This record gives sequence, C-alpha cells and structure tokens, in this order.
Amino acid sequence: MSRASFAPEGRHPSGTTFGDRIMVLADRLATWSESPEGLTCTFLSAAHQAVANEIADLMTAAGLDTAIDAAANVVGRYNSKIPSDKTIIVGSHYDTVRDAGKYDGRLGILIGLVVAEHIVQNRLDLPFNLEVAAFSEEEGVRFSTSYIGSSAVAGRFNADLLDRRDGHGISLAEALSAAGHDPKSIPALARGSLAGYFEVHIEQGPVLLAENLPVGVVTEIAGNSRFLVRVKGEAGHAGTVPMTLRHDAVAAAAEITLMVEQYCKQHGLLGTVGRLVVPNGAINLVPGVCEMSLDIRSGDDAARKTAVAGILANIARIADRRGVTTTCAEVLDEAAVPCSTRFQNAFAAAITRAGLSVRRLPSGAGHDAVMFSGITDIGMLFVRCGNGGVSHSPRETVEARDADIAARILLDVLSNLDKA
Amino acid sequence: MSRASFAPEGRHPSGTTFGDRIMVLADRLATWSESPEGLTCTFLSAAHQAVANEIADLMTAAGLDTAIDAAANVVGRYNSKIPSDKTIIVGSHYDTVRDAGKYDGRLGILIGLVVAEHIVQNRLDLPFNLEVAAFSEEEGVRFSTSYIGSSAVAGRFNADLLDRRDGHGISLAEALSAAGHDPKSIPALARGSLAGYFEVHIEQGPVLLAENLPVGVVTEIAGNSRFLVRVKGEAGHAGTVPMTLRHDAVAAAAEITLMVEQYCKQHGLLGTVGRLVVPNGAINLVPGVCEMSLDIRSGDDAARKTAVAGILANIARIADRRGVTTTCAEVLDEAAVPCSTRFQNAFAAAITRAGLSVRRLPSGAGHDAVMFSGITDIGMLFVRCGNGGVSHSPRETVEARDADIAARILLDVLSNLDKA
Repeated sequence: MSRASFAPEGRHPSGTTFGDRIMVLADRLATWSESPEGLTCTFLSAAHQAVANEIADLMTAAGLDTAIDAAANVVGRYNSKIPSDKTIIVGSHYDTVRDAGKYDGRLGILIGLVVAEHIVQNRLDLPFNLEVAAFSEEEGVRFSTSYIGSSAVAGRFNADLLDRRDGHGISLAEALSAAGHDPKSIPALARGSLAGYFEVHIEQGPVLLAENLPVGVVTEIAGNSRFLVRVKGEAGHAGTVPMTLRHDAVAAAAEITLMVEQYCKQHGLLGTVGRLVVPNGAINLVPGVCEMSLDIRSGDDAARKTAVAGILANIARIADRRGVTTTCAEVLDEAAVPCSTRFQNAFAAAITRAGLSVRRLPSGAGHDAVMFSGITDIGMLFVRCGNGGVSHSPRETVEARDADIAARILLDVLSNLDKA
Repeated sequence: MSRASFAPEGRHPSGTTFGDRIMVLADRLATWSESPEGLTCTFLSAAHQAVANEIADLMTAAGLDTAIDAAANVVGRYNSKIPSDKTIIVGSHYDTVRDAGKYDGRLGILIGLVVAEHIVQNRLDLPFNLEVAAFSEEEGVRFSTSYIGSSAVAGRFNADLLDRRDGHGISLAEALSAAGHDPKSIPALARGSLAGYFEVHIEQGPVLLAENLPVGVVTEIAGNSRFLVRVKGEAGHAGTVPMTLRHDAVAAAAEITLMVEQYCKQHGLLGTVGRLVVPNGAINLVPGVCEMSLDIRSGDDAARKTAVAGILANIARIADRRGVTTTCAEVLDEAAVPCSTRFQNAFAAAITRAGLSVRRLPSGAGHDAVMFSGITDIGMLFVRCGNGGVSHSPRETVEARDADIAARILLDVLSNLDKA
C-alpha cells in the first residue's frame, strides 16, 4: 500500500485545508436546528433528518458508497480491493443536546469525511474496507436512552426500546416509521467482521487546553456510577426552631456535597452533585426534604466501587449524626471501557511523527465507541476545545488548526495501520 | 373591680371547659378551606369569608358588639363602664398558609373569644374596653404582603398596597370591593386610644415541648435579615472536568450553607438556607449556577447586623477561594420588636399563680403584635405545640389542656391588669 508520510497537508478539491473545510461544514450542519435560536438537533426531528441528508450528500460527493440505514445512521463506504478484508469504522454522532455546540459528535464525523475524501481522491490502497459512520443518536435526549445509532451498527440494539415513548407519547418504532425507516431491519445492520473502530471527539474538558496540546490519546472511557439521593429531615419555621434542635435536610445535603468533593479529590476520581433542590423550599422554612444527584467516575472500576462504598458509608454517617434519613437509589453502574493498546500506540506514533507531545488521558464522558468495546479494538483521539473546555453549550469551540492536525493524525494512523 | 382568682375553670354555657371549646371551634373553623383536601384559607377567598362570618356569629353569641370591618377583620367589643377608658385588643389572624394547621393564628382568636365570653357572662368590671380582634391577613400568601388586617387597626396600613395584584391579576382594592368592603374606609379603622395589645399564639417551635411546659412568655419578636444569593461558577461535563479545575456553583453553595449553620450556632442566632436549587441541573453536569436564600434572625439587632456582615464576608472569601462569583441581594431588614416588660411580668405572675414554671423565650416568627409595637404595649404568650413543634403543616397540634391553661392565664392577666 502507499504510505502517507506525515503530515501531508490534506486539501479538498476546492483547495481548502482539512481544518478549514471541517469548520465550514460544521457551520453548515449547525444551520439545521429545531429551536429558533441556537442549535438543538434531537433524534428524527425535521432538523435531524435534514442534517442526515446533508451528510449523505457530502459522503456521496466524497466518492463514498452512501446510505441512510434503518436506524437513521448515515454510512459512507470505501471498499478495499480484497473482498475478504475486514472493515474499519470511523464514527461519531450527529444528534445534539439542547442548546448545543457545533462540534460534539459532528467533529468526528467530519474528520472521518475529509480523511475518507482524501483517501478516495488519492486512491489509497488500504488493507481494510473503510466506513465513515454518522450515528443518529448518542445524547439520549428524545427517548432517554443513548447510543440508538451505534448500538444498531454494533449489533447491540435493544429491541425493547422500540416501545419506549418520547415526551409527546410517540414510540421509537413510530418515530422511525414516520421518518421512512423500517425498525424490523435494525438487527440486520450489525457488522459481521470489523478490524477496528476509531472515533475522534472534542475533549469536552480543559485538560488539553491547560497543557497547550491540540490532541490527546484516550486511554479508556471511565466507568460511571450514578445515584439519586433523597434526604429527609424535619421541616420547621426558620424563626422558631433552635439550631441545636434542627434536622435540616439542606444542611445535610450540603455536608454530603462537600464530602463527595473531598473524597473524589483525595482518591483521584470525579464526583459531581449536578442536581440539588429543596422541593417547595421557602425562604423562612427549615427544609424538611432535599433531593440531589451523585455522579462518580473513574477509569478504574475497582477504585470506583471502593469509592461508591466509601461515599455511601459517609452519607449514612452524616445522616445519622444529623438525625435525618437518606435513600440512595442507584440509577447507573457502567463499567470502564479500555481503548486498545495497539490503537493508542498507533495514535501516539502518528502524534510523534507530527512533532507533537503525546498526552494520554481518560475520557470521563461516554462515546459511541463504548458500543464497539468487546466487539473490536477501539481507538479514540481527543481534540482540544477552547473557552475553558466548555461543552454541551453554544460556547463550545474548536480551532481549525487543531481539527486539521486531528484529521492528519487519523489519516496517518489509517495509512500505517498494517504496521501498528 | 372583681378579681378572678387563678385559676377559675372557665366554662362555656354548654358546660365545656375553655380548652375543649377551643378545640371544637378550631375544628369547626378548619372545615372551611379553598382546597379540596387539607386547610387553605387565604385572604378573601370564599372559605376566608365564611370563616369571618362564623367568627362574627361566635362573637355575637358571646355577647360582644361585633362587626366585620373594611379590612375584613372581625372585631367583637365589650365596653367598659367608663366612656373615657382606653381599649385593650386581644388579637391574632384567621387566614392561613397553604396546607396549614388549625391553630396558627386561630388559637389566639379563640382564646380571646372564650375569655371575653367568660368576662361577659360573669359581667366582670374591667378598667378598659376589650376588643377581640380576628385579623384578616397575616401570612402574606395572596398578595405577598403580611399584616393587611392588623396594620389597618394599628393605623399603619399602606394604601399603596391597594394596587398590588394577586396571582390572578386581581388588585387588593378589587378583592376588598368584591367582598363588600370599602377600601376607602380602611384609614378610619385606626384605634385612637389603646391600653395594650395581647396575642396568644402557638410557639411554632419545639422549645416548650422539649422543656415540658404548656406556655411561655415572649420577650421579643426577633429581627430578621433575608438575602437571595446567586452563585455563578463554571458549568462543565461531570466526566471531563478534573476536580482541581472546577468552579462548581453547588459545592460553593454547600460550603456557604454549612458556614451559615456553623456561624449561627456559635453566635447564638438562627440562620437558615430555606431555598436552594441548581436551575436546569443535570446529573452529568458540574453546576454553573446555584441559587439560595439566607434567613438570619436574632432578638438583638446589633448581633444580627454583626452576623450579617460576618456571613457576607465569609461568602466573599469562599467565592474567592473557589473562583466563583456571588451576588447577595438583601430582601428584608426588619428590626427586633420588644414585648413590654410590664406585660411580660403580668404573664409571669399569672403563670406562677397557676403553679407553673415561667419560661421566657423570644419569638423568631413575626406576629400581628409587630404592628402594635411603638403604638401601645404589647404582650405575647406562646402555647406549646406537639409533633416536635411542627407548624405551617397539617401536623400542627395543640393540646386542649394547654389551650385551657393559656386561656385561664390570659383571663387572669386581664383581670389583674390594674395591679400589673
């Protein structure tokens, strides 16, 4: 096969660089939104279907064999010359959260697109079939379930979800049918013979920004435990119950919040209280109830289990001392997903060839890659995001130069994969 | 004048004791509610007007000269024989919070009623006119302003409030007119020549319960500072922002909450965070914003001012250390209201005559008595409430025996006031 020496400046036929073209296309996809202002593009909304068609047109124009599948994924394929070759998927998702940024998910699709375009244009001879996959759903907004698109391609789609209904009472099966898709065809989307899965994604955090690096190699996707905690104390009048006789639910919740922060700092995990509310709270009432959420993450499952046990024991101690009761309902227990060492090393080699420092870091967020774990090797590359690393926000930014570097690294990795 | 030696067992003509009759009447008033379940009786609702009529009937039957005035107060009067005598008012309110208890406010009215009934029945010769006042509004639910009824009688009604609108857009003036009252007559309700104001009220707290005492003498109504605090940090993904790079609004709010609790415990004040919420919080997001309320109370205004300054300085320090910003908007700064030493001593003497221990305690909650401060001497008696001292709740309870003792103490005080 021909070897793409790093770092060729990839250009679209129009003459623009990978990076500039990715920026233009991210802006173009972001013009489709179901909200009058900002970007919201949830599963099978009109905006979502328009984006799928736009991506399909781009893939076709890039010379890929393109189709929108039964799970609303857009897949463009470049076949190897040897029919028995396995397939490598480069993918990410095109749905968004509400009031989203333009790059979460879409950056990875567009990098796959420009790299595939370059491969087609230069008729590169690869020892695998290449599929660029734009997955239909990862954020879980409409049906409160994530990975609808990637789970279908990975052969892990849960058919029970077809009966799940959105906020308007429309089932997943109905939504698919209304958009012209046949839910019964979803099981057939499972790929038989994969040689690997790659995903490029914005970091969604500030680590690369803080260390002034354009890209980083993902070591694993962290495991995640989630709890909903309800603290029940005793409501009282703010002017009449002495401090020493109070069983204040919000004071107990505050102590739990700081304990979680302290514990996770000390033990090297991530711990977050993202929701906290005094239901029907009043300025002159000692709160009788407080509801809060806990989110605990670690790349090391054993460390996460130990932390969860420690935090729950501390919650019980705090509750006991304050004379309040707590119920802690586990709502998620997701194991960590390692990235393939071979692919990590392949990314590291390409980064080194590009004259950059190699930074390995875990992903705290889930990604479509999770669905391919255990089925094939997975490899992930993070791209620096600006504005302090903000994500799931219109303030999310990526530099064209960083996107360009990420595309060239992916191209390098794919070109040299037989040597990895 | 004739002297009522403590403690006469006051009986209604039906033969029931003060306490039993108060319980029966509290239950009867509580049957009028604007909610299908529980007790809600806000200013000038149909239930509220029905309760006014019921109280007026009770007062008339007790032999009092009764009227419902332009502010919807129900006032029953027993005239002294000497036309130049001043007037003593025994009052409290008949409106309620939503999902209220049966005794908050109404206990004081009913104790005044049974005591006046006894005085009329026994033709006691008092050196003052006696008015039992059932004030129309103290809780501030409908128009977000308190003391509509008592401010009118105290000559402190703020006419600007007539334009204030409730949640349905109805102004206070319109609500009064619709109920047959003439808002223009409110200024004329101000009493010219008062000899004192007495109010019996449930404690709304657990102090008397904890000390096994039926009643307590109120020393002052605490001063109150209130703030709405908004903490602004930096939102982020719960899986991607390292603990050390976070500016977590809820963690800062938690630290503020515990600081307020600790400060007030140490310095002998009451401090409450009654409202706390992460707006649009999500389980997997580091909160960028958190909103909370502060309520600080003390009988000592100087101590309260010092505490507020100390707490605000601590908030600034916490915010600075955590890299978040805070805005603290003062929404209330109410001075403490002392109860008359003469009336405190009169209550104490009657309590001693009843063979009970005298417990003096401040009131952390505001009461109609506040409106009469500076106009005449005020005296307040607290009655033990059960269920841990819970108030503003259907779980609020008062024992018939305690209500009986409170009524007999009030009767004793009124009977012996010339000696106080």
